Amino acid sequence: MERRVRIDLTYDGTAYAGWQLQPGRPTVQGVLEEALSRVHGGRPVRVRGAGRTDSGAHARGQVGDALVATRCDDGELLRSLSSLLPKDVRPTRVRTVPDDFHAQHRAIEKTYRYLVDTSRHGDPFLARFALRWPESPDVTSIDAALALLPGRRDWSGFTGAACVTTDRVRTLTEARRLRLRPGLDAFVFTADGFLTHMVRNLVGTLLEVGRRRIGPERIEEVLRTGDRRRAGPTAPAKGLCLLRVVYDEASGGASGDAEALW
Amino acid sequence: MERRVRIDLTYDGTAYAGWQLQPGRPTVQGVLEEALSRVHGGRPVRVRGAGRTDSGAHARGQVGDALVATRCDDGELLRSLSSLLPKDVRPTRVRTVPDDFHAQHRAIEKTYRYLVDTSRHGDPFLARFALRWPESPDVTSIDAALALLPGRRDWSGFTGAACVTTDRVRTLTEARRLRLRPGLDAFVFTADGFLTHMVRNLVGTLLEVGRRRIGPERIEEVLRTGDRRRAGPTAPAKGLCLLRVVYDEASGGASGDAEALW
Repeated sequence: MERRVRIDLTYDGTAYAGWQLQPGRPTVQGVLEEALSRVHGGRPVRVRGAGRTDSGAHARGQVGDALVATRCDDGELLRSLSSLLPKDVRPTRVRTVPDDFHAQHRAIEKTYRYLVDTSRHGDPFLARFALRWPESPDVTSIDAALALLPGRRDWSGFTGAACVTTDRVRTLTEARRLRLRPGLDAFVFTADGFLTHMVRNLVGTLLEVGRRRIGPERIEEVLRTGDRRRAGPTAPAKGLCLLRVVYDEASGGASGDAEALW
Repeated sequence: MERRVRIDLTYDGTAYAGWQLQPGRPTVQGVLEEALSRVHGGRPVRVRGAGRTDSGAHARGQVGDALVATRCDDGELLRSLSSLLPKDVRPTRVRTVPDDFHAQHRAIEKTYRYLVDTSRHGDPFLARFALRWPESPDVTSIDAALALLPGRRDWSGFTGAACVTTDRVRTLTEARRLRLRPGLDAFVFTADGFLTHMVRNLVGTLLEVGRRRIGPERIEEVLRTGDRRRAGPTAPAKGLCLLRVVYDEASGGASGDAEALW
């Protein structure tokens, strides 16, 4: 009677201490496990996530999986979760997947987006979702720095002490800046995997480049030396959003909505 | 040394009991007067607003005016207000206007927008700014109802007991629905003036039309009879946003950013 389901989620992470379960603090994994547990009459249900989003970071296309034992079909389970989950965590799809599906290990590719509010006076509608960046950044230098990033590399210089992974080689396939509208920029990064704080450290470094405190060539130096101290500070989590996770077709394909600009 | 300034504002109204000053409750007028008072070393400064936005409603292009006595030029005053005001209330422009400027009386035209989240599972990023509308509305009937609205009319049937204005004739020049993206619709209304709760009552009625509970012809009936009880309920304030107020060129022209879709 048990089956493995994949659950796609979008959330405003402002009120959560990130994805991963933490005792005594609200987490997205926590509220999802609680909702699934209620579907199972109180029996605990464990959820695995595609990526551990940081405290205050958001998601458009987070993916979790769980072993469920319910007579609800996928559509009914989606409706149950929708009514049981808080309004800032919305399930967008539930589908039965092969038993050996694993939201993290089966992920082929992930895309993160980081929003920067460069409007002159700050946009209150974006206060929860974008980093306020009051100075006009030097976008030519930022774009030059971005162009140095794609490739298969060791990203040690862009992760922090919190990163427990020893293999730090990842292939970055996309690193670009989009002007979504005047006063709103997005950095978009796609890779086969990301290290802890990697996107936030990349953005923090790019913003230092945009401020002309360091040159684009610093990117190459950090990549070559792996020296975190030569990179910029970690950008705040609130601008970060896990946009999309890609799986093979048998696992349900990509999560997230490519049309959603923010 | 005194001069009259016009202050354009954008705000997330979620935390405020509307625009108008109320004892013991946070209001946008209140925080703006407090900031101006600090610029004047504690002396009280009165602000007049173009329109009294409701509790929880938002603004992209609200306009206030005040008589100030400061040596700061307009740019300096803007920067002072920007640093003194809370993050959810952002001044976007300060300009000296003729002494007889009046934010409400000089307004030629106003545009309001009402956002409706029609996405299948709800968009947590829009939770503060859009009414969640989980059923697929009958947009053909809604658009037919919208087409009946423009014109110079008595809008008594779309205002409430709270409306103290006796002259209820206004000219509505724009009433349309825009699909901003899949799952996000906007109603846009432009008129030479609006009555209390007029936009929210129009939207509440349009949503009843969208639900097929009443037909588009009900609009004509409410307009003809002026009978509020025949109209739909007042839609929640959180979807409402004062987008733009138009003045003549001598008064600084229109407020708001026409490019901002939400």
